[in-house]
Amino acid sequence: MGIKVLTIKESVLGANDVNAERNQRLLDKHGILTINIMSSPGAGKTSLILQTIDGLRGKTRIAIIEGDVASTVDAARVSEQGVPVVQINTAGGCHLDASMTGQAMNALPLADIDLLLIENVGNLICPAEFALGEHRRVMLLSLPEGHDKPHKYPLMFTEADVVLVNKVDLLPYLDFDMAGFNEAVTGLNPDVRILPVSCKTGEGLKEWLSWLEAERVRRYPRQT
Amino acid sequence: MGIKVLTIKESVLGANDVNAERNQRLLDKHGILTINIMSSPGAGKTSLILQTIDGLRGKTRIAIIEGDVASTVDAARVSEQGVPVVQINTAGGCHLDASMTGQAMNALPLADIDLLLIENVGNLICPAEFALGEHRRVMLLSLPEGHDKPHKYPLMFTEADVVLVNKVDLLPYLDFDMAGFNEAVTGLNPDVRILPVSCKTGEGLKEWLSWLEAERVRRYPRQT
Repeated sequence: MGIKVLTIKESVLGANDVNAERNQRLLDKHGILTINIMSSPGAGKTSLILQTIDGLRGKTRIAIIEGDVASTVDAARVSEQGVPVVQINTAGGCHLDASMTGQAMNALPLADIDLLLIENVGNLICPAEFALGEHRRVMLLSLPEGHDKPHKYPLMFTEADVVLVNKVDLLPYLDFDMAGFNEAVTGLNPDVRILPVSCKTGEGLKEWLSWLEAERVRRYPRQT
Repeated sequence: MGIKVLTIKESVLGANDVNAERNQRLLDKHGILTINIMSSPGAGKTSLILQTIDGLRGKTRIAIIEGDVASTVDAARVSEQGVPVVQINTAGGCHLDASMTGQAMNALPLADIDLLLIENVGNLICPAEFALGEHRRVMLLSLPEGHDKPHKYPLMFTEADVVLVNKVDLLPYLDFDMAGFNEAVTGLNPDVRILPVSCKTGEGLKEWLSWLEAERVRRYPRQT
């Protein structure tokens, strides 16, 4: 059929960047710090979001965009916390893009939000290639996934501003080389912040919440 | 540039199926049972392969194709076991396809292989869409990923012939609802075989090896 497959990705990514910039202008207009949260399936993105809502309750007005291939399992859990949430189902798509994100933003009360957390589709590969309009990128690596992941999925670790090493409560039961992991991550990304946390026990979450609040003050000093 | 993005996927998948059928004809000519192993990053695909090599040593001639976005970490571990191994690096691609697999097969001594294990890229979404020429599809779900995964990644569970529930040694330290998980999987895929295993302690691996050998005898009865 004469279709030139190799030109497609470039074209799609170009259009995505235009949409991402439009999203970011709208977010900045409303003073909404926006975080793109990425990880493998089951690394703890939803648990991190629930802990963040709980930790910033009464201080910061939070909204959530939930990305999933299918189901509204996560959005239902988040919605119980009384924050605005929009679910995107990608119907097989392996990442969110800026167009989907823009549509979800249209369904949120932007004038009443200080912090937008976007839970990307569970995938350690493609989400790192698509800007959504976010200000910062956070990835979770859960301990049971193993310390070799930076070597095997380098782009995600290169693109992240913060790497949260989740499920540290399982450390006694696993063979996880924390020093080797840290060295591999900083080798790819010298400026990255690495924070060990447990969304189950709460360990390390104070540092995560402090980082979030500092980012917000830095970006929108007049509001805070 | 007038590129019709929507027609692409169909075209690529059609070409992939042609290549997958060609691969399978070659595998059948040589009597090589071929298994496509899929999971999230860090669920234990390489550990399963190492245990399988060990468990079938002296009985079955095994070869491995390793798929990764980057690095040769897994291929190096497997190669130490003295079996033929070919590494495919997808350079950012989130799944193997039949063309890559065919090229890797060309680098293997097909006349001297009974069982080919293909470790797909760590990703719970896209690999399920691309046939490689395999006879059976096996997916690993590791306990720390959580029991809600069938709802969120339904295609992978629908396409699998066997679901190995790995890392059952961590069950005491996690909130994993095994009955609910089994029910969700069989709801999507009534004919699936679910086997709880631990590639760390060896639990359940006897059943896995028995299933593999039974499949091989069933498919190529004259050789065995």
